[in-house]
Amino acid sequence: MAGTVYLVGAGPGDPELITVRGLRCLRRAEVLVYDRLVHPGLVAEVPAEAERLYVGKAPGNHRHPQEAINALLVARALAGHTVVRLKGGDPFIFGRGSEEALACAAAGVPCEIIPGLSSATAVPAWAGIPLTHRALAASFGVFTAHRAADLDDLDWPTMARLDTLVILMGVARLPYIRNNLIRCGRPAHTPAAIVQQGTYADGRTVTATLAALPEVAKAEGVRSPAVIVVGAVVGLREGVSGVGLETMLEAAPLPPRVVEGWS
Amino acid sequence: MAGTVYLVGAGPGDPELITVRGLRCLRRAEVLVYDRLVHPGLVAEVPAEAERLYVGKAPGNHRHPQEAINALLVARALAGHTVVRLKGGDPFIFGRGSEEALACAAAGVPCEIIPGLSSATAVPAWAGIPLTHRALAASFGVFTAHRAADLDDLDWPTMARLDTLVILMGVARLPYIRNNLIRCGRPAHTPAAIVQQGTYADGRTVTATLAALPEVAKAEGVRSPAVIVVGAVVGLREGVSGVGLETMLEAAPLPPRVVEGWS
Repeated sequence: MAGTVYLVGAGPGDPELITVRGLRCLRRAEVLVYDRLVHPGLVAEVPAEAERLYVGKAPGNHRHPQEAINALLVARALAGHTVVRLKGGDPFIFGRGSEEALACAAAGVPCEIIPGLSSATAVPAWAGIPLTHRALAASFGVFTAHRAADLDDLDWPTMARLDTLVILMGVARLPYIRNNLIRCGRPAHTPAAIVQQGTYADGRTVTATLAALPEVAKAEGVRSPAVIVVGAVVGLREGVSGVGLETMLEAAPLPPRVVEGWS
Repeated sequence: MAGTVYLVGAGPGDPELITVRGLRCLRRAEVLVYDRLVHPGLVAEVPAEAERLYVGKAPGNHRHPQEAINALLVARALAGHTVVRLKGGDPFIFGRGSEEALACAAAGVPCEIIPGLSSATAVPAWAGIPLTHRALAASFGVFTAHRAADLDDLDWPTMARLDTLVILMGVARLPYIRNNLIRCGRPAHTPAAIVQQGTYADGRTVTATLAALPEVAKAEGVRSPAVIVVGAVVGLREGVSGVGLETMLEAAPLPPRVVEGWS
């Protein structure tokens, strides 16, 4: 009988931001298939005897073709194993997780989706930026700038008009994003933020107007991975984090960033 | 010295979809302040000696004013207690969590945000609907229909043009939503779904064209809470869940829906 493939969202970075159910899955995995942005502390949670397969970018920047990953999941499940496919963020948001689920379904392999915290929502929250607010934002939208093709496909006038806009993987294409949004009518003075390594202890947030964000981010040396937020809600951050949101993460009575000894 | 207020996202329903960090917070709470849609199993996780304060709707439909909740959080923290404010979904998405964080900041009370899984992303994933897909959806947007005023504030032409649209708390206003989207140019035959009680064992998904969704949902007796998804990605569900996604949740070797005995 075929084993089940669990498509598990690892969350936005901090290993404690995986779900309880996701962690439970990891601890019962017979085969773990994981990506580059997954925290090593989560990989360490699978049983010692489990097979661990890394399918992220190799040192020479080689990518495993998606078809090969699909085939791997199916083959291990058909061999009777419980397979955990651990993906950064949420498996069904910009992660090709749906292609993996479809491949399992086509092969008759049972597949369960365990949603995870997408960095699109969790990283702004961590940085003290609410995506909505009664007076400022009734909606939000999300896109990714991972590939140039992603941006070419976008309906920029629509993106420019969203109350709050969240952009994933956009550091390298920040000037292009800024130019398009302003060209499509977004005011140049709209508050904007870029959050590097959000949810990690060494994470940081840089804010500026939309017009200035690319240059400010460059001057500050902001690097990938980072989440960009554009909209009036960014202006709330100062109030929210005035007491030191990031500092609290350290000072809080909860042990921060602990991976072992979850209970 | 003031205690800390932890604004914790409880996730979309299933208590195992809280984060590991959120659960850890609950287990150290001295005061718990919680809402209507929070699972009782999570409330049961706070220490026996903790104070538990329900601030959701009372039987007579009376609402606790937001200002009273803010004042409660601040007062308990200033008295030196570790306060957990447990909110359904994510505390910074349509939940007035930012108002609570701002109230804490204004009073000099330390506040930490623990993001949670929003039903906007987790419920579609649970139902087998990816919000994005390389060929079908490069972006997604989210709004709430909780109050009529929410809908009046919306930029409908923008909402109608998003690749994937997720609508929270929209059951009662489904015809109005459908009419506005179609009036603003969304094709009547766009695939659409409504997911009732998503992530729960008794959850279910009803699909139809956008044009027919209100009537189909009514005929099926769909009730709140429910999440609506509009867009071509809904068409992927049949493939993804062809092996029985919901059924797998039951048949999987992981004990489903267990609240006690997390470890």
